[in-house]
Amino acid sequence: MIKAVPRCLDCVFNQAYRITEILSMDEEKAWNFLKNSMIALGNVPDKTSPLHMTRVMYDVLESFGYTDPFRDHKSYSIELARKFLSEMKNRVKNAEDPLFEALHVSAAGNAIDFGQRDTSPEKVRERLISVLEKTFHAPAYEEFRKDLEKGKTVLFIGDNTGESVIDTILMCLLKDKGYEILYAVRHVPIINDVTYQDAVASGIQECAKIIDSGSVYPGVILDESSEEFQEAFDRASVVISKGQGNLEGLYGVSEKVFFLLTPKCPHIAEIAGVPELTPVFYRAL
Amino acid sequence: MIKAVPRCLDCVFNQAYRITEILSMDEEKAWNFLKNSMIALGNVPDKTSPLHMTRVMYDVLESFGYTDPFRDHKSYSIELARKFLSEMKNRVKNAEDPLFEALHVSAAGNAIDFGQRDTSPEKVRERLISVLEKTFHAPAYEEFRKDLEKGKTVLFIGDNTGESVIDTILMCLLKDKGYEILYAVRHVPIINDVTYQDAVASGIQECAKIIDSGSVYPGVILDESSEEFQEAFDRASVVISKGQGNLEGLYGVSEKVFFLLTPKCPHIAEIAGVPELTPVFYRAL
Repeated sequence: MIKAVPRCLDCVFNQAYRITEILSMDEEKAWNFLKNSMIALGNVPDKTSPLHMTRVMYDVLESFGYTDPFRDHKSYSIELARKFLSEMKNRVKNAEDPLFEALHVSAAGNAIDFGQRDTSPEKVRERLISVLEKTFHAPAYEEFRKDLEKGKTVLFIGDNTGESVIDTILMCLLKDKGYEILYAVRHVPIINDVTYQDAVASGIQECAKIIDSGSVYPGVILDESSEEFQEAFDRASVVISKGQGNLEGLYGVSEKVFFLLTPKCPHIAEIAGVPELTPVFYRAL
Repeated sequence: MIKAVPRCLDCVFNQAYRITEILSMDEEKAWNFLKNSMIALGNVPDKTSPLHMTRVMYDVLESFGYTDPFRDHKSYSIELARKFLSEMKNRVKNAEDPLFEALHVSAAGNAIDFGQRDTSPEKVRERLISVLEKTFHAPAYEEFRKDLEKGKTVLFIGDNTGESVIDTILMCLLKDKGYEILYAVRHVPIINDVTYQDAVASGIQECAKIIDSGSVYPGVILDESSEEFQEAFDRASVVISKGQGNLEGLYGVSEKVFFLLTPKCPHIAEIAGVPELTPVFYRAL
């Protein structure tokens, strides 16, 4: 698991502030939510992880009566991602190495931050394409191909709702090759992460069996995951960990785990060994 | 005085985070300073001002043993600003209306954020020129010229160290026209704001008499200012309030006050009625 650095306090609090804008909180509620978040975050232990810090902030948000506050936001993200799906499918189909390109497209999907201000389809597509134009840093690709052949099961751990739609390209491709695909979701809504309901809305069941990771964090922590998840983890020959949150939780845990993401903060970019906003596929052990 | 909005919590805390980087705090100290700042800021009253919030954070910084932590930083800023001084002087001298251009150059000086990462002379000059290339929004200019003639004394309230050097162009021009110029500084070091010592190092005494505002905030609050400042305020026919902090403190206080700045946050830009990073000279009453 990744340990938080002081910068994480600023980042998580800035997320809290952006939540007040995304949810159009009235001024009094925003003050109270932000001040309570500050006090809660000001009391986290120094040895905590970014995942636990986000959970602390989210607990405060829930105490203000928000349950799945990103419901509408997530539905919009799915709708939006569907607009790019056939373009991305064609990109993969026409590629020299479709598996490599499917990984690339999936990593780039992670760069779309639906929490940003301008979420018009044009702007989101622009961001997606700008990441796709960068060289895909994939040092783990050959090992992944080799490890894939060791078994029949691939465990894919989902991250944000919206990119989940794009992830079906990679998963369907693997399914068509004869693999059983398991797709792990968060146990409860946290920010815009994929829950069971969001996975179904994203069409995941067309290529994968949806399972509950048991995670209440914006990333899976193996020790705190469900029995179903742990069994899937043991059974899979490879685990595709999508996004920053899952990397934070699963870092250093097993050599089965391949991290597929586009780092959006300097701390994670440094750990992944690439500049920020560079799509990357690598193994940490 | 300007009332804080929820966004100010995020901004002041982000300043605290940037301070840990500027001062190269070790990780343990950074954690402790940031967490203590969070708890202190999480307890401010909702009806507070941004100035009071910065003071709260700065009190925490001082409690960690930092006295005038920006000493070196301010010296560097002065040295840097001196590099641009003759270029800016020529710009004013060759202008069709030197007084107007001196105000413009002074406002643009406010846009140089020496707290930013890249503080190389090239980068800072680039930022200065980019603001100077924008149209100077100066609706108060004619009123200012008229009000200037009502007396003999101009009170100029300084803001950041470094831009203080650039401000001498405007003040020397007014002095040459026969005005007595008083230049108000902060009572104590707060962030990179001009203290008596910094004003002297900036060469202010060549064109103005330096007075103590009595302010312990990053802006002057009239009710809490020194007797010397209040007397100067009464005596002056016009008061030039430089930068965001002084605007926050003096907003709505007197029609003598002319605000000269380049807003660097959406809240102040909205109050000033210009887009962010647009140099502006206006009167609020």
